[in-house]
Amino acid sequence: MTLKEKVGQLNQQMYGWNAYRRNADGIELTEQFKDQVKFGDGMGALYGLFRADPWSEVHFENGIPTPDNAKIANRVQRYVMENTRLGIPVLLSEESPHGHQALDGTLLPVNLGIGSTWNPDLIAQAYAHVAAEIRARGAHLGLVSTLDILHDPRWGRTEECYGEDPYLASRMTSAVVIGMQGTDSEQLKSPDKVAVILKHLCAQGTGLGGRNAGPASIGERELREIHLPAAKAGIEAGAAGCMAAYNEIDGIPCHVNEKLLTGILREEWGFEGIVMADGCALDRLLALTGNYEAAAALALTSGVDLSLWDTAFTTLEQAVKQGEVEETYIDRAVERVLRLKFRLGLFDQPYTDERLAESVVGNPDFRRINLQVARESIVLLKNENHLLPLNGSHKRIAVIGPNADRIYNQLGDYTSVQRKDAGSTILQGIKNNAPSDAIIEYRLGCGIRDKSDSGIQDKAESDIAEAVAAANHADVAILVLGGSSARQFGGEFDSNGEAIVSENDRSEMDCGEGVDLADLRLGGWQVRLVREVKATGTPVIVVLIQGRPHALTDIVDSCDALLCAWYPGQEGGQAIGEILFGKVAPSGKLPVSLPRSSGQLPVYYNQKNPGRPRPYVDMPSEALFPFGYGLGYTSYEYGDIRVNKPSMTVKELQEGEAFELSVEVTNTGDRAGAETVQLYIQSRKSGITRRLLELKAFEKVVIEAGAVRTVTFRLDQEQLSIWNRDMKFMLEPCELTAYVGTDSTSKSGIDIHVTK
Amino acid sequence: MTLKEKVGQLNQQMYGWNAYRRNADGIELTEQFKDQVKFGDGMGALYGLFRADPWSEVHFENGIPTPDNAKIANRVQRYVMENTRLGIPVLLSEESPHGHQALDGTLLPVNLGIGSTWNPDLIAQAYAHVAAEIRARGAHLGLVSTLDILHDPRWGRTEECYGEDPYLASRMTSAVVIGMQGTDSEQLKSPDKVAVILKHLCAQGTGLGGRNAGPASIGERELREIHLPAAKAGIEAGAAGCMAAYNEIDGIPCHVNEKLLTGILREEWGFEGIVMADGCALDRLLALTGNYEAAAALALTSGVDLSLWDTAFTTLEQAVKQGEVEETYIDRAVERVLRLKFRLGLFDQPYTDERLAESVVGNPDFRRINLQVARESIVLLKNENHLLPLNGSHKRIAVIGPNADRIYNQLGDYTSVQRKDAGSTILQGIKNNAPSDAIIEYRLGCGIRDKSDSGIQDKAESDIAEAVAAANHADVAILVLGGSSARQFGGEFDSNGEAIVSENDRSEMDCGEGVDLADLRLGGWQVRLVREVKATGTPVIVVLIQGRPHALTDIVDSCDALLCAWYPGQEGGQAIGEILFGKVAPSGKLPVSLPRSSGQLPVYYNQKNPGRPRPYVDMPSEALFPFGYGLGYTSYEYGDIRVNKPSMTVKELQEGEAFELSVEVTNTGDRAGAETVQLYIQSRKSGITRRLLELKAFEKVVIEAGAVRTVTFRLDQEQLSIWNRDMKFMLEPCELTAYVGTDSTSKSGIDIHVTK
Repeated sequence: MTLKEKVGQLNQQMYGWNAYRRNADGIELTEQFKDQVKFGDGMGALYGLFRADPWSEVHFENGIPTPDNAKIANRVQRYVMENTRLGIPVLLSEESPHGHQALDGTLLPVNLGIGSTWNPDLIAQAYAHVAAEIRARGAHLGLVSTLDILHDPRWGRTEECYGEDPYLASRMTSAVVIGMQGTDSEQLKSPDKVAVILKHLCAQGTGLGGRNAGPASIGERELREIHLPAAKAGIEAGAAGCMAAYNEIDGIPCHVNEKLLTGILREEWGFEGIVMADGCALDRLLALTGNYEAAAALALTSGVDLSLWDTAFTTLEQAVKQGEVEETYIDRAVERVLRLKFRLGLFDQPYTDERLAESVVGNPDFRRINLQVARESIVLLKNENHLLPLNGSHKRIAVIGPNADRIYNQLGDYTSVQRKDAGSTILQGIKNNAPSDAIIEYRLGCGIRDKSDSGIQDKAESDIAEAVAAANHADVAILVLGGSSARQFGGEFDSNGEAIVSENDRSEMDCGEGVDLADLRLGGWQVRLVREVKATGTPVIVVLIQGRPHALTDIVDSCDALLCAWYPGQEGGQAIGEILFGKVAPSGKLPVSLPRSSGQLPVYYNQKNPGRPRPYVDMPSEALFPFGYGLGYTSYEYGDIRVNKPSMTVKELQEGEAFELSVEVTNTGDRAGAETVQLYIQSRKSGITRRLLELKAFEKVVIEAGAVRTVTFRLDQEQLSIWNRDMKFMLEPCELTAYVGTDSTSKSGIDIHVTK
Repeated sequence: MTLKEKVGQLNQQMYGWNAYRRNADGIELTEQFKDQVKFGDGMGALYGLFRADPWSEVHFENGIPTPDNAKIANRVQRYVMENTRLGIPVLLSEESPHGHQALDGTLLPVNLGIGSTWNPDLIAQAYAHVAAEIRARGAHLGLVSTLDILHDPRWGRTEECYGEDPYLASRMTSAVVIGMQGTDSEQLKSPDKVAVILKHLCAQGTGLGGRNAGPASIGERELREIHLPAAKAGIEAGAAGCMAAYNEIDGIPCHVNEKLLTGILREEWGFEGIVMADGCALDRLLALTGNYEAAAALALTSGVDLSLWDTAFTTLEQAVKQGEVEETYIDRAVERVLRLKFRLGLFDQPYTDERLAESVVGNPDFRRINLQVARESIVLLKNENHLLPLNGSHKRIAVIGPNADRIYNQLGDYTSVQRKDAGSTILQGIKNNAPSDAIIEYRLGCGIRDKSDSGIQDKAESDIAEAVAAANHADVAILVLGGSSARQFGGEFDSNGEAIVSENDRSEMDCGEGVDLADLRLGGWQVRLVREVKATGTPVIVVLIQGRPHALTDIVDSCDALLCAWYPGQEGGQAIGEILFGKVAPSGKLPVSLPRSSGQLPVYYNQKNPGRPRPYVDMPSEALFPFGYGLGYTSYEYGDIRVNKPSMTVKELQEGEAFELSVEVTNTGDRAGAETVQLYIQSRKSGITRRLLELKAFEKVVIEAGAVRTVTFRLDQEQLSIWNRDMKFMLEPCELTAYVGTDSTSKSGIDIHVTK
C-alpha cells in the first residue's frame, strides 16, 4: 500500500448523509463523497449514512426510504471498491446509543432505563435486534454509549449512562457486545451482527461541574475502580472497538493518553480491535500541539487508529513526510482497521442482501422485546396506600403534563425523526390500558421549562388553571413531568437547548449532549403544577419522563404515587399504561442515587469511606432515594444470609474456591413479581481506603405469590481483588461484611474474612 | 536512648489543658500529665496547654491568667526535665490559625480575609506578632492552616483557606513562615519566634462533596499544580513542620502516603523538619490495618514523626517488638523531633522569661497591625451611585442583622473565649466612625439560620417587622448578614452546628470545622430581610460577615452597596466603620470566585480548559463575582502592556533570562487608593491541557490621586515551567497570552512565545 492509501484507511472524515442526494431521478452519490474516496484512494470508514435527525437534517422527505437502505450502502461500497486501486471495502458506521438513529429505527429506552432493568439477558436480546437492523441496511459498525459512569447528574449525557455503578455497567456492556456481535468472533460476518464501538474511553461521566467534556482530574485508582471496569468487560466480551472520550484525565486528553489507549487497553487487556476518535476531537488537540500534523502524530502514536470528521488525521501523510511520526505507527493502525474489515467478512462479502431491511427493521419481535425492556425499566419510587395499580375505581382520570403526549420527549437524545404513528405516548398508553368505561381528560398543564419572565406567562397561568380544574373533577390525576432531550429541526442543534424554545409547543430541552443543568429541580412551573393539583385533594400519580435524576425534594410529598420512567422509548407509553393499570408489575430498580438537590452532589452510593459519613448542616448526605431502590406490586421477605465458609485464605481463593452466599426470598404478597436481589460488600483492613459499599452481584428472579426462591451468589478471587497500595490488582487479606437485600440500604449482612 | 524513651519522643498524646488544674491553692499539675511523662520517660510534645474554647472548656474562670502563662509552661517543662532519665525538654504546641487560640490571644481575620489583602508583607508582620505572643507564654510550635486550597465552598473549613489559587496561597504561606520563624534558622531560638507547623498536607480543600475530610480522588498532576505549591513555598521559606491531612488521596490516606510525606516532601524538597499527625488521624487507619501497631508502623514508615492524641503511636514499642516495624524508622523520627528541639534552643534554654507575656500579648503594635489587616481584607463588591463612602448626608442610620453586634460571629472557628470588651463589633465600629450627629438605630432582624418550622417563627416575624420599620424611617440601612462559626460552651462541640442552636440569641453556626453546608444561599430569613428592607426604598448597604462564599444571586440586586468582610477579627468592627464612612478606602480583592449557587460548583477560575467553557441551561458557568475582583473608592486606568522581548528560547530562560512585563496604572479618581495589579497567563501548545487562566504575579501598590505607577512583573523559568506529559517539572515551548489587570477578567493581554 502507498502511504496515501494507508492514510485513507485511517480516515472517517465526512458525514455519511452528505454522500448522497435524493432528487427527482432517484439517488445519486455526491462529488464530496467521490472526492473523499479520491483523497485516500479508498476510505477507512464512513459515518452516519442513515443518521436522520435535526443535525443531519435528514427526514422522511429527503432521506432514503428504509427498504432502499441497503441499495445505497451497496452503491457506496461498490463505488469505493471499483474506483480505487486496491478495492478495499469501506466500513459504514452508525449511531445506536438506544437503537439505530435512522428512519424507522426501533428506539429503546435510554441507558438509564436499560440500567434500571437489571436484566442483562433481556438487554442482549434487544441489542441483537439493534444489530440486525443496522446490518440489514448495509452498515457494519454500531456506536453505542456503554462506558460512561454517572458521577454528576448535571451532565446532559447522563441519560447515556447505565448508572453510577461499575459492576452494573460492566454487565450491561457485556450484554450489548454479546447481543450485537454474538459470542463467537466468526459471527461478525453474519447478516444480523455488527461490530460494536464502545464509547467513551474513559471517565467522561465525572467531568468537572457536570459540564460536557469537562476535565476529569482523577487519579489512577479512581480510574481503575470506577471508570475502567465496563470497558474491560466489553473488551473481554469481544468488542471490536472503542471510541476515545473528549475529556482529559489529569491533564492528558484521552485521545493522546498512551497509557490508556495502548498500555491498559492493548498491553494489559489484549485488545486487538480499533480505537476510533470522537467527532473532531483530534482537532481540539491543537491546544496542545499547535498544528494538525503534530496533533495527528501524537494521537496516532498514543493509540488512535481511525478518525472522526477531523482535519488532523487527514494530514498524516504530511506528518510522516515531516518526520513527525514514523510510518510504522501508520502501519499499526492500518493493520487494525483492515483486520476489522476482515473480521466482518467484507473482503469476501462487501455487499448486503437488499431485501433484508424491509423485513428486519421494526419487526414485531423487536417491538415485543422493546416493550419488555420498557416495562422493566420503570421504577416505582412511592405508592402510598397502594394507590397503584389503579383498580378500576377511578373512573375519571386527568392526564396532565408536558411529557404526557409528546413522543419526542420520551425518546431521548440521539433520536431519529419519527413517523406520526411511531410508538405510543404516555397518554396513548393510558388510553390503551384503562378500563373501557374510564373517562380520560388530558391537559398540558405547563411546559418543561416555561419561564416566568417570557411572554408565555399568561398562557402558562391559564394552562395550569385548566389542569387544576381537570384534576379537581377527576378521581385521580396522572401528572407526566420531567425533562426533555428532544431537539427540533430548524433550531441551533448545538446551542444548549436555549435556542430551540418554541412558543408553540414549549418543548424545551433540559438534557442531552451539551445540555447541562445546574439546578436539578424540575424546570419551569412543574413543581407549582404538582402542588396545585395536590391541593385539589384528588390522588396524584407522578410519572417522571427524564434523562437524568431530577431533585424531587419539592414534589415527593405532594404525590401519592411516583414512577420514574426515564426516557422509555417508543413502547414506553404502552409500558406505563400497563403498569398503571396493573397489567404488568413494575420491577425496575434505580441504577443511580437520586439527589435531594444540586447542593448535595455527588451523591453516588459507592463513595470512599472517610471514616463516618457526615450530614450537611442543612440536609443529609444520603440520597433521597438510594441506589438499587424500586418497589413492586407485591412484597418480599428476605431470610438470613448463609455462607459456605466464614473465612478463607488468599491461597484458597486463588486456587478457585469462592464464598457462596445464599438467601431465601419469599414473595409475601398476593401477586407474582420480579425482584432484583443485590449483593454488596463493605470491606475493611485491606491496606487502602475502601468504599462505603460495592455492588458485587445481582440476580433478577421472578417469584410467584407465596413462593420462595433461594438465590446464591459467588464471591471469588476476581470479585474480591483490589487495586492495592502498590497499584497492583491483587487479592489482599481483609475483613468484609456482605449484604444481600432489595437495595443498597439493606442492613442484613454477614461477616466474612479473607485471611493470609 | 531506650526504645521506650524514643517512643515517648514521638508522642503528643494528651490535651494540654488537662495537664493542670486551677484550684484554691493555685495551679497544680495533674496525675494524667505525670502519667504521660512516665509513659515515655519524657514527652515529645504537649498540645494546647493554653487552648481556651468550648472544646477545651477552658475560660477566664478556670484557665491560667495570661500573665501567668509562662509560669505554667515552665512548670510543665521543669517537671518533664527533672522527672525523666534524659531530661529532654518537651515541645509545647498551640493552635494559631488566625492568631493564638488562648485567653487574650489577638485574633486576626480568618484566612479568607488574609487572602483578600493580597499583601504578604503585612501578613508577615502580623504573624511575627502571633509568634511573639505564643513564645512569650512559653510555647514553641504554632499550628497554622496555610495549605488548604479552596475548591469547594460547601466545606466548613473554607474560612481556613487563603483562597482558591496556589500562587496566592504560596505567597501567604511564605509570609507566615517568615513572620513566625524569621528568615534565619537561628532565629527560632529567639523569645519572639516559634516553629511553624503548616497544615494540612495535602488536598483537604478538594474533599468530595465539600464534606469535611472527604476523599480527594485526584491525580498527581492536579496535586502538583494546585495542592502542593503552597507547601513547597512554606518548606522553602524554612517551615519547621507540616501536619498530615485527614483526607485520602486516590485511596491512600495522607498519613500513610509515603510518596507524599517522604518522596516529595523530603527527597524532592529536602525538608528536614517534622511531620505531625492530625488529631486521632492515626487511629482512623485501623480501617486499613485492623490494629494499632500496624497502623502506627505504616504511618511511621510512610513519614509521620509525631502523633496527635492517638492511641496508635503509643503502641510503637510493641510494634517494634512484634516485628511490625524496624527500629531504624523510630530512630529516624526521633532524630527529627530532637533536631527541632535543638533548633528551638530548648536544650540550652528550656524556660521562658515569665515577665514577657504581660507586655507582649495584645500589645498596641499588634492591635494596629491587626486593624490594618482587617482594613485590607474587606472587599467592596458593589457600590451603586457611589453610595459609599457615606458622606454625612445620611443622618439616620439603621444597623440591622444577626452579625451586626456579635463579636463571636466575626471571629471564625478556632477562636478563644473573649473578654467582654475585646475587639469591636460592626455596630460599635459604625458608632465609633459615624459623624457625631448621626442617629444610629440597631435591630437584630433575624438569626443566621432561623427555621420557619421552629417555635421561633413569631419572634422572627416581629424581628423582621421591627427591622423594616427601623429601615423605613432611616436615611440608609446597613444590613450585616452572612454566616457564623461561633461555637458555644455547653453545646455539642462536634455536632455540625445543629445542637448549639440557642433560642435566646439564635447564633446558629453554618461554618467551621465539621460544619459543611449544601445550599450556599444565606441561611434562615436573611434573603427575605434584605428584600423587605430594600422595598422600603431606603438605600441598602449589605456587609457580609462570613467564613465562606455564600451564593449572593438572591440579594445582589437588592442592595446598593455590598461589602464582603469575611470574619474580620477583633478589629473588624472598627475597620468596617472606617470604610463605611470613608476614613479608609477598601482595597481587598476576592481570593475566591463567588458562585451563583451550589448547582454551579466548582466555580474556581483556574479550571482546566476543555476547549470552550459551556454555560448550563439554567445559568452561566462563570462566577457571580470573579477571582481577584474588588472595588475601591477611586478608579484606575491601565495602560498597554509592554514586554522586553515577545519571544524567548527555552535555553535563554533556563540561563536566567525572563520576560519583563510592565504596565502603567493611573489613579483617575480624586483620592488615593491601593490597587492590586495582577498578572495572569493563558498558555497553549505545551503538550498537556492547560488552565483557563493562571495567576503568576501580583503587586499591591498605593497610588495617589492622579498619579501614575509603573508596575513590572517577571515571568521566569520557574513561573513558566509545567508538570509536563511525562510528569517532569520542565520548561516546555509554548505560546501564551499574559494578562495584566485589576482582576481575573481583564481582557488586556499580550502574546509571548517560548520557543525551542
